[in-house]
Amino acid sequence: MEEIRRARRERLAAWTAAHDLDALLVTRLVNVRYLTGLDSSNAALLVPADGPPLLATDGRYAGTAARVCPELEAVIDRHTAETLLERAGGAGVRRLGFEPHAVTVERHTELTGKAAEGLELRPAGRPVEELRTVKDDAELALLAEACAITDRAFDAVLPLLRPGVTEREIAIALERRMVDLGAERPAFDSIVASGPNGAIPHHRPGDRPLARGDLVTMDFGALYGGYHADMTRTVAIGAVAGWQRDLYDLVRRAQQAAVDAARPGAETMAVDAAARDIIKAAGHGDDFTHGLGHGVGLEIHEAPLMGYDRTGKLVDRVPITAEPGVYLAGRGGVRIEDTLVARTGGPELLTTTTKDLLVL
Amino acid sequence: MEEIRRARRERLAAWTAAHDLDALLVTRLVNVRYLTGLDSSNAALLVPADGPPLLATDGRYAGTAARVCPELEAVIDRHTAETLLERAGGAGVRRLGFEPHAVTVERHTELTGKAAEGLELRPAGRPVEELRTVKDDAELALLAEACAITDRAFDAVLPLLRPGVTEREIAIALERRMVDLGAERPAFDSIVASGPNGAIPHHRPGDRPLARGDLVTMDFGALYGGYHADMTRTVAIGAVAGWQRDLYDLVRRAQQAAVDAARPGAETMAVDAAARDIIKAAGHGDDFTHGLGHGVGLEIHEAPLMGYDRTGKLVDRVPITAEPGVYLAGRGGVRIEDTLVARTGGPELLTTTTKDLLVL
Repeated sequence: MEEIRRARRERLAAWTAAHDLDALLVTRLVNVRYLTGLDSSNAALLVPADGPPLLATDGRYAGTAARVCPELEAVIDRHTAETLLERAGGAGVRRLGFEPHAVTVERHTELTGKAAEGLELRPAGRPVEELRTVKDDAELALLAEACAITDRAFDAVLPLLRPGVTEREIAIALERRMVDLGAERPAFDSIVASGPNGAIPHHRPGDRPLARGDLVTMDFGALYGGYHADMTRTVAIGAVAGWQRDLYDLVRRAQQAAVDAARPGAETMAVDAAARDIIKAAGHGDDFTHGLGHGVGLEIHEAPLMGYDRTGKLVDRVPITAEPGVYLAGRGGVRIEDTLVARTGGPELLTTTTKDLLVL
Repeated sequence: MEEIRRARRERLAAWTAAHDLDALLVTRLVNVRYLTGLDSSNAALLVPADGPPLLATDGRYAGTAARVCPELEAVIDRHTAETLLERAGGAGVRRLGFEPHAVTVERHTELTGKAAEGLELRPAGRPVEELRTVKDDAELALLAEACAITDRAFDAVLPLLRPGVTEREIAIALERRMVDLGAERPAFDSIVASGPNGAIPHHRPGDRPLARGDLVTMDFGALYGGYHADMTRTVAIGAVAGWQRDLYDLVRRAQQAAVDAARPGAETMAVDAAARDIIKAAGHGDDFTHGLGHGVGLEIHEAPLMGYDRTGKLVDRVPITAEPGVYLAGRGGVRIEDTLVARTGGPELLTTTTKDLLVL
């Protein structure tokens, strides 16, 4: 990993040089982690266009920093951004890029007030997020394991899905099983939405007990090695009505179309449309109330966003979710979601659980 | 709760009027929740100096908003801040305060570009956080229950603390027990630090098995009704050496001194000093490497910060933590922490677990 991270920093240094900056101040913690391996609640990284990067973190993380990135010089100071700003000024930096989506107006005012004479803070966009979009082998391996844990937890919890058990009990069982299978923790707050609650895309699992005839949507995932899995399945309890099976088949076809479309070179909007057009043609366009999906990695939601209003092209090695859903107020809903990777040879599914409708 | 939240909004409107603003745009989600009851990942609130507030959230939360704050007009639009900015402009607002610690430079640029002609965005400081510092009865009741769950989970997990069990197993047991006892989830990532790991204040629980002669520090808490408990105890496994007992007694005396000092009117710095001076006098001043504690409430860390470099006075109804620690590199450490409330009649401990040294 040391070499991989060094290469990431070198790519960022090249970006910095190409964008007329003397250095870039990285303060977004997940970006610092990506570039250094250090997972800290207080850290920053100065990446000069030319020369060695400089890490700052506080005393709580000094030992960890020495272990995970011994190749980097580290300043131990709890005022991480300030100390790097000072070092940049001392090193003659004039144009210092910063991450405008990670620095608040309050912090910006503070930092500007402390910048050396002649040092200019320039908003630099999101270069680290752009680098992070395309994953290397080590990242894809971690994400695949996160998804495998998620699949196994689902499989293990299926026997629990009986009338009488509550949404919350299912959510807790899924989360515990993921941790038992090696997850650091759940990648996000699990959704278990049964019966009419299935019409609420982000329903919080509550005390509603499952009943025969319910559709139950479970959206959950494992965090493993810093990487976030994301999976959704909708199952039926005891029996399935005609409208439920029709809805399920519709969403399944739409989801498969999106998976098939998720190839390098595809417009993100076109991947969304592959699913959306099928749902629209069935008269449920207005009931698919969110985008198709999103990138996953060190964050549960990251670039690229796969929405109907998003521009950009997929490239090789970009993991995304494909999660169309149809929500019928008062009745219920269906969502089916895989985590997959756009690959030159065709989409690679990291989620491998069946998409046949399970009637339990 | 509806009346309580209305009173909060009225206090904020009065603050807005007193600070030469026509309205305040609240975008920090925890602050929106405090003022409306709506716990959403996408919401904002416009509080005019005069007139009814206006809520914005997206379609996922429309139903919830109608249920938890039916008294408020709500605009359903996923561009929550933009839509309120537009409404403010339309209503003739000229000086619109915003939360500079919750708006990034990127968002600020976007919002400024969309503001109506003549509307000025002004950084307004942290008025909602200031309001939130002093808790009402409903908040104190939720926090007390969060702390009670935390105490009970600790008690339930004590029998597990035997040589051979790993830090991670203990952390998982604590977290599961809290959820079984009614917690929404853990209030933060639990710390279990055994033996030499006890010298790392924020150690992540790992695969180290407990051994006879270890000190084990557990720092954890329950989230209940949105309120965060925070508790730490250090116990001994099987046997306790002289230096360990001395260290424990020192930290216990220091912690008690801080609790006793946490009265309305006390300077936060003086409460920190009550503990720190005792630790310094014993020659361990440099081994107490963090502040005494922090406020708790809708966030695990909130105002007031109780550090040696923090100014301000405690007032009645402010819950804080008192958590001095001494950390000896390579050997281990002790930390003892209660959540308590500064009250006119004297500090009220919400954490009630014994502070006697448990040798298990």
